[in-house]
Amino acid sequence: MSATVGQVIRCRAAVAWEAGKPLVIEEVEVAPPERLEVRVKILFTALCHTDVYFWEAKGQTPVFPRIFGHEAAGIVESVGEGVTDLVPGDHVLPVFTGECKECAHCKSEESNMCDLLRINTDRGVMLHDGKTRFSINGKPIYHFVGTSTFSEYTVVHVGCLAKINPKAPLDKVCIFSCGISTGFGATVNVAKPKKGSTVAVFGLGAVGLAAVEGARYSGASRIIGVDLNPNRFELAKKFGVTECLNPNDYTKPIQEVIAEMTDGGADRSIECTGNVKAMISAFECVHDGWGVAVLVGVPSKDDAFQTHPMNLLNERTLKGTFFGNYKPRTDLPVVVEMYLNKEIELEKFITHHTTLSEINKAFDYMLRGESLRCIIRMDA
Amino acid sequence: MSATVGQVIRCRAAVAWEAGKPLVIEEVEVAPPERLEVRVKILFTALCHTDVYFWEAKGQTPVFPRIFGHEAAGIVESVGEGVTDLVPGDHVLPVFTGECKECAHCKSEESNMCDLLRINTDRGVMLHDGKTRFSINGKPIYHFVGTSTFSEYTVVHVGCLAKINPKAPLDKVCIFSCGISTGFGATVNVAKPKKGSTVAVFGLGAVGLAAVEGARYSGASRIIGVDLNPNRFELAKKFGVTECLNPNDYTKPIQEVIAEMTDGGADRSIECTGNVKAMISAFECVHDGWGVAVLVGVPSKDDAFQTHPMNLLNERTLKGTFFGNYKPRTDLPVVVEMYLNKEIELEKFITHHTTLSEINKAFDYMLRGESLRCIIRMDA
Ligand SMILES: NC(=O)c1ccc[n+]([C@@H]2O[C@H](COP(=O)([O-])OP(=O)(O)OC[C@H]3O[C@@H](n4cnc5c(N)ncnc54)[C@H](O)[C@@H]3O)[C@@H](O)[C@H]2O)c1
Ligand SMILES: NC(=O)c1ccc[n+]([C@@H]2O[C@H](COP(=O)([O-])OP(=O)(O)OC[C@H]3O[C@@H](n4cnc5c(N)ncnc54)[C@H](O)[C@@H]3O)[C@@H](O)[C@H]2O)c1
Ligand SMILES: [Zn+2]
Ligand SMILES: [Zn+2]
Ligand SMILES: [Zn+2]
Ligand SMILES: [Zn+2]
Repeated sequence: MSATVGQVIRCRAAVAWEAGKPLVIEEVEVAPPERLEVRVKILFTALCHTDVYFWEAKGQTPVFPRIFGHEAAGIVESVGEGVTDLVPGDHVLPVFTGECKECAHCKSEESNMCDLLRINTDRGVMLHDGKTRFSINGKPIYHFVGTSTFSEYTVVHVGCLAKINPKAPLDKVCIFSCGISTGFGATVNVAKPKKGSTVAVFGLGAVGLAAVEGARYSGASRIIGVDLNPNRFELAKKFGVTECLNPNDYTKPIQEVIAEMTDGGADRSIECTGNVKAMISAFECVHDGWGVAVLVGVPSKDDAFQTHPMNLLNERTLKGTFFGNYKPRTDLPVVVEMYLNKEIELEKFITHHTTLSEINKAFDYMLRGESLRCIIRMDA
Repeated sequence: MSATVGQVIRCRAAVAWEAGKPLVIEEVEVAPPERLEVRVKILFTALCHTDVYFWEAKGQTPVFPRIFGHEAAGIVESVGEGVTDLVPGDHVLPVFTGECKECAHCKSEESNMCDLLRINTDRGVMLHDGKTRFSINGKPIYHFVGTSTFSEYTVVHVGCLAKINPKAPLDKVCIFSCGISTGFGATVNVAKPKKGSTVAVFGLGAVGLAAVEGARYSGASRIIGVDLNPNRFELAKKFGVTECLNPNDYTKPIQEVIAEMTDGGADRSIECTGNVKAMISAFECVHDGWGVAVLVGVPSKDDAFQTHPMNLLNERTLKGTFFGNYKPRTDLPVVVEMYLNKEIELEKFITHHTTLSEINKAFDYMLRGESLRCIIRMDA
């Protein structure tokens, strides 16, 4: 048993003191895990748009000071009371949404939207006691989506930790914690394209390219990539996109362009933009009779999805998905095995590297639209 | 071989000379079937809302004089060139939508929206030569959705005829041609409720009650019926509806009422009203994580289906269906067998009877909202 068990750990973390201001590397105190909690030593984390979005805090209730980060991989340091599934030394992926294994959602084969541990971006404290486990000189520092991985040590509810094969390289599989699983799962778990089919993907960021990777994995023969930003097209082709479309290049709606290219519509579409216009196009571009459209992007509060009901009556299906319909504890270990078996390609998503000391560089790469994923080493 | 083969048949038919005017029983000439056509002696027909809708001809291009009717059963009298599947004496159900067995839709396992024989309410002529097979003193009388079953003999494309077990009573199974299959199939083929689940059905007309019958057949433990007309509730309970709701009895949206009654939402919903408000309620009343809503009702031209995209992202599914996703030639014979095996109850849908001579009575029953289905004998 390590000397730190039951003790407060002092370590480095990147603290966001204010909305939109560069993170500051601070020495923080990390309390021991309480009931059903686990303290994890984070080895690698990545930066996702959702971190940036809540760090910018535009149009939300800002919760500061806060430790962001939710795409990561680490090793269990110690476990709280009642934790039976994990022991110190286990390799884990923290996930922003959990699996309590007891609610109606966890018991349903179809849902992964755990009632207890579903994402909550407003909460900055632990469920057990409504308190934080992070502090600086005793003053609380808030958590983010239950993960707060921009810290050398963090405390996470056991239901938000997937135990994975210790052979998996943590500097790679850390990105399965969010965007890559979301996009890949949207295709393989929800859209389920058949071999040889045509798949349209709207939005060619990390999530959209993971959806493209899912289409490649599923044996799609045509993958149509749609983005307003033509800078995304060169990389997209490396991921297997066969045709790239920019809606701004056409006078007619892009769904009509796709219908003409495909003799009536794509077999499947996956929307990964968060833009409601793209959601409507993604739905209307699928073929009648059998087309399935899957929405992944997170919309704005006032958005309205609107279409003529005949588009539905003509036997199209519209679905949304959250975290690619994966149940984190049950399914992520399997996804990691798929990577180890070389069924999923992960390296191509990792475009940049940096260290915890220089974490603000990762923000710059993302804000400039240069990176897909930047891996941040915690030990430097 | 019957003496009529290759000859024009003179017989009685109910002709609609003008929009909204009572049908007139006339002696019509029925030409022999051309290539890929079949001439059928109709024994029983029923009246469906779609007949009434196009007879009223509000807001459509009126096609008159016309012979309506599309829910029926009959016996093959003769076949045209190229027809290999049917011979005189076969028992058949004519269907308003067909199955050519050769287009992409017919070859797809998922679609029943045949490219060649999909419903076309504007066409009053046969596909083969763009002419009618009905006339009075040589002047053309137009067809309706390729079936025109309000005639003792009619000519139908072979792709719109389901060959059924000759043991099936034609005065009952005739109603499988449209509304009953549409509602039943919407539940069992598309919504697919699990045993013990909660199903909400919007609209308790013949189609909605057939959806209810599908829920009963599937073993649903709660069936919530929603209608603006409380006169429908007594009958609905006989079909197995466990709770009846009238949206006018509540100040809050009916989807919220249903969510409260069901701890978060129904497992499945089926909309059978044609009203776009009901479509939105039917979608929003299903449970997040696993709920599936199926739209059946035919909307108006200018309707817009509108919802917040978060309702989709929270893992709800929205689908539409046409003719209950049944492929008419492949699947209707199986549905008829299910009736013969007492798996589906049909008698409860048949509330009235009349004869061809008195066919206008069937219109009166429907317009007064008294009937579910009125069976019309053709030989009297
Ligand atoms: N459902 C989930 O569980 C989940 C998880 C992670 C991310 N997301 C969401 O997925 C979406 C994509 O995430 P990302 O990290 O890949 O974002 P990103 O910003 O890197 O990529 C989005 C892409 O969409 C393009 N785009 C924007 N509007 C468009 C339009 N109208 N038509 C075509 N392209 C358009 C942009 O140019 C951009 O390239 C976001 O909305 C994010 O919030 C959802
Ligand atoms: N998709 C297909 O293949 C197909 C085939 C046949 C019929 N249909 C359609 O199915 C629908 C139902 O047909 P039907 O013959 O049972 O009609 P119907 O008129 O007998 O029944 C419809 C019921 O819906 C109720 N209703 C109307 N607006 C409502 C609302 N806002 N909320 C709750 N209830 C409401 C009415 O009071 C009525 O009882 C129609 O739109 C019809 O065109 C579709
Ligand atoms: Zn749960
Ligand atoms: Zn993320
Ligand atoms: Zn066809
Ligand atoms: Zn009908």
